[in-house]
Amino acid sequence: MGKYPVSPLAPAAFPALPVIEGVAFATIAAGVRYAGRTDVMLARLAPGTTIAGVFTRSSTRAAPVLDCQAKIGGDSDAGAAIIVNSGNANAFTGRSGIDATRAVTRAVAAELGLPETRVFSSSTGVIGEKLPAGRITDKVHDLSAALDPGKIAEAAQAIMTTDTFPKGASAQVELGGKTVQIAGFAKGSGMIEPDMGTMLVYIFTDAKVARPLLQQMVSELSDRSFNCITVDSDTSTSDTLLVAATGTSGAAVTSTEGPFRDALHSVMLDLAHQVVRDGEGATKFVEIEVTGATSDQEARIHGKSIANSPLVKTAIAGEDPNWGRVVMAIGKSGAEADRDLITIRFGEVLVAEKGWVADSYREADGANYMKGQNLKIAVDLGLGSGSATVWTCDLTHQYITINADYRS
Amino acid sequence: MGKYPVSPLAPAAFPALPVIEGVAFATIAAGVRYAGRTDVMLARLAPGTTIAGVFTRSSTRAAPVLDCQAKIGGDSDAGAAIIVNSGNANAFTGRSGIDATRAVTRAVAAELGLPETRVFSSSTGVIGEKLPAGRITDKVHDLSAALDPGKIAEAAQAIMTTDTFPKGASAQVELGGKTVQIAGFAKGSGMIEPDMGTMLVYIFTDAKVARPLLQQMVSELSDRSFNCITVDSDTSTSDTLLVAATGTSGAAVTSTEGPFRDALHSVMLDLAHQVVRDGEGATKFVEIEVTGATSDQEARIHGKSIANSPLVKTAIAGEDPNWGRVVMAIGKSGAEADRDLITIRFGEVLVAEKGWVADSYREADGANYMKGQNLKIAVDLGLGSGSATVWTCDLTHQYITINADYRS
Repeated sequence: MGKYPVSPLAPAAFPALPVIEGVAFATIAAGVRYAGRTDVMLARLAPGTTIAGVFTRSSTRAAPVLDCQAKIGGDSDAGAAIIVNSGNANAFTGRSGIDATRAVTRAVAAELGLPETRVFSSSTGVIGEKLPAGRITDKVHDLSAALDPGKIAEAAQAIMTTDTFPKGASAQVELGGKTVQIAGFAKGSGMIEPDMGTMLVYIFTDAKVARPLLQQMVSELSDRSFNCITVDSDTSTSDTLLVAATGTSGAAVTSTEGPFRDALHSVMLDLAHQVVRDGEGATKFVEIEVTGATSDQEARIHGKSIANSPLVKTAIAGEDPNWGRVVMAIGKSGAEADRDLITIRFGEVLVAEKGWVADSYREADGANYMKGQNLKIAVDLGLGSGSATVWTCDLTHQYITINADYRS
Repeated sequence: MGKYPVSPLAPAAFPALPVIEGVAFATIAAGVRYAGRTDVMLARLAPGTTIAGVFTRSSTRAAPVLDCQAKIGGDSDAGAAIIVNSGNANAFTGRSGIDATRAVTRAVAAELGLPETRVFSSSTGVIGEKLPAGRITDKVHDLSAALDPGKIAEAAQAIMTTDTFPKGASAQVELGGKTVQIAGFAKGSGMIEPDMGTMLVYIFTDAKVARPLLQQMVSELSDRSFNCITVDSDTSTSDTLLVAATGTSGAAVTSTEGPFRDALHSVMLDLAHQVVRDGEGATKFVEIEVTGATSDQEARIHGKSIANSPLVKTAIAGEDPNWGRVVMAIGKSGAEADRDLITIRFGEVLVAEKGWVADSYREADGANYMKGQNLKIAVDLGLGSGSATVWTCDLTHQYITINADYRS
């Protein structure tokens, strides 16, 4: 943190997030790996809170992810806690990784008087190094003493690794005459092609939502937010999304459709976009919209193929309206396409149609459009009604710089 | 060509290639796109030559690829010709692309007295711009007049685009008391994850091989050579591999096994490796060997996932023995893996085993190994007997530089 300049795509400031009744945060500098900054965050959740989660599908997922997954289905009125450290992912650490996760969650459970099954933990940072759990457990009492409902911004700071800015978002929605708040934060910048939930995301609401309903909504929405972003096509071993509903507003959500779902979706999408905007080395935020596919699934395959193509991403970095590389990425995706039916637009500029450059297209128009910071590439395949939107960033020298010396 | 320095991984010199009786080459500067260099190559093949081909599976493949594919099954005693231009890929050029390919092949057929179905063409270079076929057809007579069996090195030069060195390889093999020669050349540097045959590859032999036998051998071997390399995970719209057997040695190949197959394989592998060694911006040549998978297919999926991971490739560029990223790439591949059974070696250095860093591993050993120019990453999954080897290069600043300003 602080090693690289703040992304040019960062929001002007961290948003003012509402207090969610029933949730309190604390952070501390435990020296897990970094010096001179906070690196552990604790969140305490009131009794009655329901929690839903989505996790990486990586076959080499980290110990705390496996631990979270095992616990996520459980319901309890005992309340809950989430503890997260940055600096060390506790991934690929064998038996010691399981022990470290257990030591941390056990210490939190004892301190807060919770069953161990209600303490969720995440770790993010370097892979393959033993997590110094003692440095965290030593601080659990101090963390507990510092818990404060107003410290959500500090929590967002403490979980950052190569992030250049903390990521927060909120929404509020009227439900049965009551106001429901939703607030959350995320971290993530590299190793981003979530196979559900990106890196680490925590969202809190004071709505009352039964766990199965919350889980269904979160799973569906993560598929249309975090699962539609990519920075570098690399999927983390630690991706975790937790959504906690305290119920303290007294307003109950009883359907997966409706204004609460929409508000939750907007928070998830906002956080997902912020992760892309902090993509390592990013200078352009790119929306890729694919329509006319044989199915939504096929549209997403095309979208991801374009979004992950190094040649498309370097062309964007170079402000080159190189639509030929978009055609290439469609062609290699494995999903259905007919070369001669493809239409491509850069923003409002019609670039290609019917298998060739559009008659009206002028290279100067394309080149001018590419100078923008927020770009849209729209592809219509002309085959059916399947559609998908994915978000990505460009691939720049700074990505290489960051990742060729991450551990040095 | 000449814009970027020659790859540090290039062979010391272009090899001395044998003359293949029955094949003659000519090159010319037609000004298709580049100035001051040759950009068209013509090869004339003697009557009786059999030709096998493998082509990109891209759904947006270029007009000359479609034309080649349609012609490849045909047999004829009339002889044949191959004409290739660099500078313009004639890809995504709609109806005009088909017309341009036909104009070129028709002109060659007329000049050389061949049926049009025996003239194969390829185009490589920028996508989406109309091929100025007239510049090529204008030169066909001069090309024909210049045909010379000794000009294979010049042919390899003429088809280069972002290549920093021409790529050639040869082998000879004794067959029934006769000496059979095999010689070929390739181009390719970026947009390299062939989905069969890389970019453009032409191989010639004076062996006598029936077309179905030749095709079977070439298809099988391309799956173990060109289909096992990747530079940037991007698959070209123009990938084409043609193998021509003139039969002029009088030695007949009658089986897909045996010394001829081995010799052909060695030439294909040599050319495939040279394409990786000219990977855009490459400073390291990396062999990735995966063993212990549940099948060869699963092993290749893991190998490609490692070879295409931007985080693995930037770590290699930074000489960082970051085996955690190898674990990550295995985890995201979608193929079967058990985190706690994985063994990873960098060269002879045992890095990780049983789901964690090896007891004997010292970071200094890994870091020292990574300083080499030719690296091997060996992964054993501990699950079964499936294996695969893939080859790739690192991802450096130079790749970004080359591709962020390719068209400018």
